[in-house]
Amino acid sequence: MTEYKKLALSLAKQAGDIMRANFELGMKKEWKEDKSPLTITDLQINDLVIKEVKKNFPDHDILAEESSSLNGQSEYVWVCDPIDGTIMFSHGLPICTFSLALTKVGESILGIAYDPFSDRLFTAEKGQGAFLNNKKIFVSTESKLDKVVGEYEMFKMAKYNINKVADHLTMVEEAKLTRLCSIVYPACLIATGDLGFAIFPGNTAHDMAAVKIIVEEAGGQVTDLFGQEQRYDQPINGCLVSNGVLHQELLNLIKRFVDNK
Amino acid sequence: MTEYKKLALSLAKQAGDIMRANFELGMKKEWKEDKSPLTITDLQINDLVIKEVKKNFPDHDILAEESSSLNGQSEYVWVCDPIDGTIMFSHGLPICTFSLALTKVGESILGIAYDPFSDRLFTAEKGQGAFLNNKKIFVSTESKLDKVVGEYEMFKMAKYNINKVADHLTMVEEAKLTRLCSIVYPACLIATGDLGFAIFPGNTAHDMAAVKIIVEEAGGQVTDLFGQEQRYDQPINGCLVSNGVLHQELLNLIKRFVDNK
Repeated sequence: MTEYKKLALSLAKQAGDIMRANFELGMKKEWKEDKSPLTITDLQINDLVIKEVKKNFPDHDILAEESSSLNGQSEYVWVCDPIDGTIMFSHGLPICTFSLALTKVGESILGIAYDPFSDRLFTAEKGQGAFLNNKKIFVSTESKLDKVVGEYEMFKMAKYNINKVADHLTMVEEAKLTRLCSIVYPACLIATGDLGFAIFPGNTAHDMAAVKIIVEEAGGQVTDLFGQEQRYDQPINGCLVSNGVLHQELLNLIKRFVDNK
Repeated sequence: MTEYKKLALSLAKQAGDIMRANFELGMKKEWKEDKSPLTITDLQINDLVIKEVKKNFPDHDILAEESSSLNGQSEYVWVCDPIDGTIMFSHGLPICTFSLALTKVGESILGIAYDPFSDRLFTAEKGQGAFLNNKKIFVSTESKLDKVVGEYEMFKMAKYNINKVADHLTMVEEAKLTRLCSIVYPACLIATGDLGFAIFPGNTAHDMAAVKIIVEEAGGQVTDLFGQEQRYDQPINGCLVSNGVLHQELLNLIKRFVDNK
């Protein structure tokens, strides 16, 4: 195991312990300026990641949701969402994960996502496949939109408005849509073949950096909303995650309904 | 404890055991004519409920999602959704519940919902309050839409199209919306004060009969989509579930955007 992976696994385990210990109904939270919630647990895990990466790899940069440590000198950037799905976590819904990727010149080379409530640890390294609890996983081969469950996110501050895509998928294509206020969780279930796709209209790399490699190593596809590759250590142009088979059809829909600004 | 409640609790426990035993990634499912999924677990629990109610209360009727036993002679009807959230259950997402209500002349007088994955048992009897694992629960007093998480469902076969309500709530009111493909689960979290509201555009009573009493006994409000009371042993006109404080504002939005057909 590489030293990088060793650190990532240790952080995932610690983050999971913290999430489990702090999960409760009626949780205290603050509302950030972008109107998303923040809990003390997000901050605690964010601090842990910065501290441990700095200790182990002092030259590396860290880009994380709540605070970062960037000197801009390193080609290695650790990209972390301490809790992907804070809305769920802070409202009694155990659908949330710790997410951490290591990027090299913007490319995800290691991705870890951990759901401590169902004890699901997703891992992937470049060229070595994707794993759930050490068992190799693969995306589905389903090609019909009305036979898959897909995820989408939408919020006022999103970079793109994908409401029309969601309405079309629901009312015309008859896809089953979820809106889990988490993108890493459903993306990991794309990697296992349980879900078919996920559409993310935001511009924040910390949501997608680990997903990028986990899903692709499972045989799926991850691009920006318009089919392009992109870096995952700086702002992104949304994200389309799929089992690969459905990718082009979804890109066509997005092109039809979403303004590429 | 009443004999009714005793049976309901026993059924919830058995149903929970079955759900836990059968929950796995890559679950086998069939797609019903209405394009919703069906698993063997739904059928197993549905059969169990019919068998046990018939044994204990042979005069009572049973209205359940997968099959019913109705002679139309009894004022008592047990209304059951064996798994509320089959889409979630069958796609690796542990957000689903067993739901059972006893209605008398269409009024819910006993409601039980059980989430076996987080071991949360919700119970309510007319006039006696609502409980989570025997602890009394209450809805929130939050009156601002941008400070609550709300749930909505939408699917092509829905009786009402509430897409415009959802878009308005997201883009103008800045409420945080989930779409959990389950209505009982989020409604129970309205009863605990964690969520603010849920909008259900379907016409099936089995989704709402238990929720009706659990949420109202916790201090919240449950009406059809247009603010009217309704029976829960026959088709319904959708459902608006809220903490009460937000109810009128949401009814106004629904009136503005939804055709009351």
